[in-house]
Amino acid sequence: MTKPIYILNGPNLNLLGTREPEIYGAMTLDDIAAACAAHAGKLNQTVEFRQSNHEGVLIDWLHEANLKASAVIFNPGAYTHTSVALHDAVRAIEPPVIEVHLSQTAARETFRHHSFVASAARGSITGLGLASYLLGIDAALHCLHH
Amino acid sequence: MTKPIYILNGPNLNLLGTREPEIYGAMTLDDIAAACAAHAGKLNQTVEFRQSNHEGVLIDWLHEANLKASAVIFNPGAYTHTSVALHDAVRAIEPPVIEVHLSQTAARETFRHHSFVASAARGSITGLGLASYLLGIDAALHCLHH
Amino acid sequence: MTKPIYILNGPNLNLLGTREPEIYGAMTLDDIAAACAAHAGKLNQTVEFRQSNHEGVLIDWLHEANLKASAVIFNPGAYTHTSVALHDAVRAIEPPVIEVHLSQTAARETFRHHSFVASAARGSITGLGLASYLLGIDAALHCLHH
Amino acid sequence: MTKPIYILNGPNLNLLGTREPEIYGAMTLDDIAAACAAHAGKLNQTVEFRQSNHEGVLIDWLHEANLKASAVIFNPGAYTHTSVALHDAVRAIEPPVIEVHLSQTAARETFRHHSFVASAARGSITGLGLASYLLGIDAALHCLHH
Amino acid sequence: MTKPIYILNGPNLNLLGTREPEIYGAMTLDDIAAACAAHAGKLNQTVEFRQSNHEGVLIDWLHEANLKASAVIFNPGAYTHTSVALHDAVRAIEPPVIEVHLSQTAARETFRHHSFVASAARGSITGLGLASYLLGIDAALHCLHH
Amino acid sequence: MTKPIYILNGPNLNLLGTREPEIYGAMTLDDIAAACAAHAGKLNQTVEFRQSNHEGVLIDWLHEANLKASAVIFNPGAYTHTSVALHDAVRAIEPPVIEVHLSQTAARETFRHHSFVASAARGSITGLGLASYLLGIDAALHCLHH
Amino acid sequence: MTKPIYILNGPNLNLLGTREPEIYGAMTLDDIAAACAAHAGKLNQTVEFRQSNHEGVLIDWLHEANLKASAVIFNPGAYTHTSVALHDAVRAIEPPVIEVHLSQTAARETFRHHSFVASAARGSITGLGLASYLLGIDAALHCLHH
Amino acid sequence: MTKPIYILNGPNLNLLGTREPEIYGAMTLDDIAAACAAHAGKLNQTVEFRQSNHEGVLIDWLHEANLKASAVIFNPGAYTHTSVALHDAVRAIEPPVIEVHLSQTAARETFRHHSFVASAARGSITGLGLASYLLGIDAALHCLHH
Amino acid sequence: MTKPIYILNGPNLNLLGTREPEIYGAMTLDDIAAACAAHAGKLNQTVEFRQSNHEGVLIDWLHEANLKASAVIFNPGAYTHTSVALHDAVRAIEPPVIEVHLSQTAARETFRHHSFVASAARGSITGLGLASYLLGIDAALHCLHH
Amino acid sequence: MTKPIYILNGPNLNLLGTREPEIYGAMTLDDIAAACAAHAGKLNQTVEFRQSNHEGVLIDWLHEANLKASAVIFNPGAYTHTSVALHDAVRAIEPPVIEVHLSQTAARETFRHHSFVASAARGSITGLGLASYLLGIDAALHCLHH
Amino acid sequence: MTKPIYILNGPNLNLLGTREPEIYGAMTLDDIAAACAAHAGKLNQTVEFRQSNHEGVLIDWLHEANLKASAVIFNPGAYTHTSVALHDAVRAIEPPVIEVHLSQTAARETFRHHSFVASAARGSITGLGLASYLLGIDAALHCLHH
Amino acid sequence: MTKPIYILNGPNLNLLGTREPEIYGAMTLDDIAAACAAHAGKLNQTVEFRQSNHEGVLIDWLHEANLKASAVIFNPGAYTHTSVALHDAVRAIEPPVIEVHLSQTAARETFRHHSFVASAARGSITGLGLASYLLGIDAALHCLHH
Repeated sequence: MTKPIYILNGPNLNLLGTREPEIYGAMTLDDIAAACAAHAGKLNQTVEFRQSNHEGVLIDWLHEANLKASAVIFNPGAYTHTSVALHDAVRAIEPPVIEVHLSQTAARETFRHHSFVASAARGSITGLGLASYLLGIDAALHCLHH
Repeated sequence: MTKPIYILNGPNLNLLGTREPEIYGAMTLDDIAAACAAHAGKLNQTVEFRQSNHEGVLIDWLHEANLKASAVIFNPGAYTHTSVALHDAVRAIEPPVIEVHLSQTAARETFRHHSFVASAARGSITGLGLASYLLGIDAALHCLHH
Repeated sequence: MTKPIYILNGPNLNLLGTREPEIYGAMTLDDIAAACAAHAGKLNQTVEFRQSNHEGVLIDWLHEANLKASAVIFNPGAYTHTSVALHDAVRAIEPPVIEVHLSQTAARETFRHHSFVASAARGSITGLGLASYLLGIDAALHCLHH
Repeated sequence: MTKPIYILNGPNLNLLGTREPEIYGAMTLDDIAAACAAHAGKLNQTVEFRQSNHEGVLIDWLHEANLKASAVIFNPGAYTHTSVALHDAVRAIEPPVIEVHLSQTAARETFRHHSFVASAARGSITGLGLASYLLGIDAALHCLHH
Repeated sequence: MTKPIYILNGPNLNLLGTREPEIYGAMTLDDIAAACAAHAGKLNQTVEFRQSNHEGVLIDWLHEANLKASAVIFNPGAYTHTSVALHDAVRAIEPPVIEVHLSQTAARETFRHHSFVASAARGSITGLGLASYLLGIDAALHCLHH
Repeated sequence: MTKPIYILNGPNLNLLGTREPEIYGAMTLDDIAAACAAHAGKLNQTVEFRQSNHEGVLIDWLHEANLKASAVIFNPGAYTHTSVALHDAVRAIEPPVIEVHLSQTAARETFRHHSFVASAARGSITGLGLASYLLGIDAALHCLHH
Repeated sequence: MTKPIYILNGPNLNLLGTREPEIYGAMTLDDIAAACAAHAGKLNQTVEFRQSNHEGVLIDWLHEANLKASAVIFNPGAYTHTSVALHDAVRAIEPPVIEVHLSQTAARETFRHHSFVASAARGSITGLGLASYLLGIDAALHCLHH
Repeated sequence: MTKPIYILNGPNLNLLGTREPEIYGAMTLDDIAAACAAHAGKLNQTVEFRQSNHEGVLIDWLHEANLKASAVIFNPGAYTHTSVALHDAVRAIEPPVIEVHLSQTAARETFRHHSFVASAARGSITGLGLASYLLGIDAALHCLHH
Repeated sequence: MTKPIYILNGPNLNLLGTREPEIYGAMTLDDIAAACAAHAGKLNQTVEFRQSNHEGVLIDWLHEANLKASAVIFNPGAYTHTSVALHDAVRAIEPPVIEVHLSQTAARETFRHHSFVASAARGSITGLGLASYLLGIDAALHCLHH
Repeated sequence: MTKPIYILNGPNLNLLGTREPEIYGAMTLDDIAAACAAHAGKLNQTVEFRQSNHEGVLIDWLHEANLKASAVIFNPGAYTHTSVALHDAVRAIEPPVIEVHLSQTAARETFRHHSFVASAARGSITGLGLASYLLGIDAALHCLHH
Repeated sequence: MTKPIYILNGPNLNLLGTREPEIYGAMTLDDIAAACAAHAGKLNQTVEFRQSNHEGVLIDWLHEANLKASAVIFNPGAYTHTSVALHDAVRAIEPPVIEVHLSQTAARETFRHHSFVASAARGSITGLGLASYLLGIDAALHCLHH
Repeated sequence: MTKPIYILNGPNLNLLGTREPEIYGAMTLDDIAAACAAHAGKLNQTVEFRQSNHEGVLIDWLHEANLKASAVIFNPGAYTHTSVALHDAVRAIEPPVIEVHLSQTAARETFRHHSFVASAARGSITGLGLASYLLGIDAALHCLHH
């Protein structure tokens, strides 16, 4: 398989490392990108790692992934809880989408308990920090091989 | 009247024809654009047909329509159900806005039952596929002539 | 096609012209009946136009329409918001049913925001006054030809 | 202090002066910008005054403000009521953020009663028209000096 | 004034005297009719006293009252709690409508706590048995003379 | 016992056999009437089998049953879920009332989960197709003999 | 009967005549007191007319009425909607309590739709302005004589 | 058919005859078992009658019934209202499951109005005391023969 | 202007400085009174500063303010969230009322998120500690001069 | 320890012995006061026993108890369910507060199920009549000694 | 009295001393058992102290207590909030049941605020740690002697 | 590390392979156990794989795991949605607990959308069939090494 895995990150994730480190840890988004690339490399995969604060850009990228990606690892950030449009975009595309979250959202504020993306995604991995992403890559490959 | 009718389409509608054809049919958005232009042409109207996945762009276009359009046909897609900002934009502008939907949203998931746009729009036409758009053009002209 | 289009009207619509003209306009139900007949005539259609304040009569008429009508234009009035029985009747019959409303119900009291009929109807047209009916006839013909 | 105060305005506020003047008054957004600059000038402050209809742009600006602003006056417009992402952005940055609204949102439609931004902001000032902004500047300076 | 006062009674009230006498008392509907006629007679009024189990008939009678009655005393029975159509009929007519109930509905099951008729009626009198009707007649005359 | 068992059927049940056969089966209401009469005959009972789309007629019949029936088998159809008036009528009469439904309403749409009739009826039998009626007759006889 | 009828008025009713006259009319509370005394006098009754903005004082007065009043006419004002303590006080005393309201509370804001007092009172009379009080006196006498 | 009908009873049903006899009657669970066996015997069926207070045991028995029973009569007692696990167990097995209740649960406390078992069961029979069980056996046989 | 600004404080605010200083700070209510007087003095205003734990006293004072105050700064404390009577009192009086809170109530327990006073007040200032009061004075003067 | 235990009683408790004796028993509040004093005396404690119908007075007394009481036994009566102000007062003071109720509030009307005081109190004792008070005294001493 | 007092403990209470000591304290369940036995001994009572993680076992024990216990002290742990079956078991048995909790559940997560056991128990004692049990014993004896 | 990883499975999972294969697949629970053991073996880990339909047994096993397991993979089945007791057990133990589900519960019935276990678990992996378990083992090891 030569198409890359798209790893798409939603709003405020660019602040990782500085934003509420007691929840999100000290790792930056660049650290995560590097770890994902390394992990994928061991599995002979490439990754396309991006972040945007714009809901519309995330939708555009999911559409792009429909053509260019083998799979999508998607951390929608706060849009998880409010975006029917992202639900629709995930449901509309072919490659498997794995929803990931750094924190265990179910243990946080009530408004973070519902995910519009989960009901459209193939699977969800939450609460495991960086490992959520790395296991997400493994999960995506699992979906592609089954 | 020399101003065109703006026909604005929201998120994921660019995927029409491939996305869930059992709900949305096999027609592409280009097909709809062409049919709208033809229908308007028979009525001596021109149309400006656009699509964006960005809520902000849709707001910008509604503001632009305030100056340049005679009327607006608006399919807000998934933003229908979540966007107070679009409600405000529709309410803020002068030309009549007709909300249209391809599918009968009231017959789908609960989170598609409420429309923030409907309470600001002049009228709504839902469930009729391409005809929702064509009747929307007729409705807009009706509003302009009454 | 020789079967007429049934145009059925629910409770209190017989008071049109006198009841809350700021919401419903000055047109009487007879005016609407005449305009519908004229519009249908141009399309080589006949209409059967009726009104009842009785939920049961409306159900009876929908059943009758199942046998005798090519399509149904249905303004259920206040029963829109409370009648599961009308939902079932609409769902049970063959001819396409187009729900119409004179006013934009979504912009009125909360108890008018939900429609039990919409989820069973083929399409809905709201907020456009008399034009809701005329476009409803067009929509019905569209359904019959597609 | 040499960093400017960022004054960020959300969707549809660019229409001020024309949009529902009975609610928002006849002042334009340029009028407000000028009054804010004048008020800040008297206090030896500069302001950076911006407006966007894009939720993502507002998030980007809040991130930029984290580096370049001494404080933020934020009128999120309709995104106030729907955006968890703006809640997170406000919570993620260092400079004090004062939420302001021209109208008394608590006295309007139900869907304007909840603010996702308020629970992340340092303080909120509502209902006072232009004065909401000017007092917001005073409040921001108060936060910086205490 | 020569027009009669319409006293309209909803479903199951024909069973008065036999139905749950611990709630409704031993008086029959005929007893109430006679007492109302006597009370009105002392005030030089006539009454038109009717009962129906049919929501549609009650709407028809309200419409008839619009032309033929000076005022309406209305005990909508169980339709009180479910009928938007009766709300609309009451709101649509000119003569003052006084809602009456024999029992104190607020002290009974939850589903009897909300009245769709109350928000359209001029006034409501509840819980006083026969006296609810007699005071209703007095209230109606009060409305007519003020 | 010489009084018949009343078997009363609500809205849309006259369409049985044609309406959504995947839910309601291919049997017509006449088939059910015949089967009920046969079953009752074996038990030396007669039945009075009726159907109406009118809530008011159903109430009238329940009142009539109070005088003329030994028991009532009642399938209120869609009025099950919306009619406080039928709740009151059932509660007001002497003969035992057994609520029956062809389908398992608890397994269908949310708006079919609540029954206003159940809380007034002696018992309920649901989901068993024709057998709901036949067992309903048995249940009624059981009530009469205990 | 020599005990007076207590007529107790809750918060803000002392402002009658100046407060929102479009809702409450131009009559002052003194006018109402005088009209009540006159009406009662014709019926050979005396009244004790009071107003307080203090929930606790109203409770004290209801307790006092338990000993000294033949009946109570009670307009609890805004405490109607929030006071379980007044519910308990009304339920705890012997003389009949008639709840009255000048306006039709069911037609106003949602937070005025529920009355904690109604479920404890003998009867309620709403929406009839001064006549609510005068009919309340009549209702109280009715309760005492039956 | 040689497999027995399993009749499974949930928590607290072992106390029948002593527990709230005004709701559940004076019959003991042994009486019910004997009556069921006798009734089944007349129909050439055997029954396996059990009771447990343990949700897990009830699930185990439903699984056992999947292999050893022709049908299941199931009175889940209080677990009716709280157990998703029993819903799943009922849905997972082949033999028809008839839910039965001695009392009319819809007429009792609100927390007894919802049944997680009903939406998975073939049919439900409620409110008829012992007859709920006997008719349940008849219903089960009906399911097996159709 | 010679009338003073009334600054009214609700329940438990007299404990400031000792009560939950992590939320309310170390300042006492006397400190706030002094700071308000000083701030008003610079603006040639006088203040009348009071506190009460009694809802009724606060209503009395608001009525008094109607006659004697130029404006009102109002911190209703816990009554903010429960008092319809204070809502009515604020709405009933002429001078502008500015609601103030020391803490950011939107960031605290759910039962502090709704304010009955906000929907009646001219404006609200929250979360800024003492500055909420001082800016409240400025806001009040702004209202008086516009 | 020389400070007394404050025993504070809320609205309508002064009517004990006459008010709904089937719920509250035949004991008067004086009886309870005497029993509490006797019980405390055996433990070498004094009590200060008070009752008020005024929420504000109860708050004042809690504040007074902060200075003068070793502990507080508090039966807030109906204010239990509605008073955020009492919640705050209980939370603001140092001595342990034990909430007591004569009846088992959880078994009564829904509006008595939530307690604003419980979440601020050290402990709660309900349903045990006079014993709720006596055990409350024991509980208070337990808190003081641990 | 020779029957022992049953003291029954629900799920996870066996972990006391290690589980969340900041909420539950450092005492183990054995410590509590010993303290209860000692306290009861002083009052010439014996106790039967048990713990189970199984809802069904707790029901079995309550049934056993019906025959063998003079009273029951019951800490249902997490089943408090979810078990209708325990509600029924408590309601079904003769000996008085006192519900106890170590922590003040009303001050914890929302899902711990409702108790299904409280509405069936004679009384409840919460928030007082070990003392909840000891006072529970006293309360049980109080119930037995009154 | 010599302690095994506990893999605990809740109700109805023993039926895997036969129960709703369109949701859960054709794999049996033994297949999953074998795959887990093999996967763990490659990572030099052992597993202890169990299933129970009893909530209490699952709690017991979690307590046992507190002493004997290095980590827990937990598929609570239907108890996920109803068990506060399992939430407490997960929160009470030391080893990391990873919640896993075969299906994407967020895409199924509403009553499967909330997980009481998720808010107590370290992380959750859903929707990936067998891979949910295998990735769960990887996640557990990740937790142990970080």
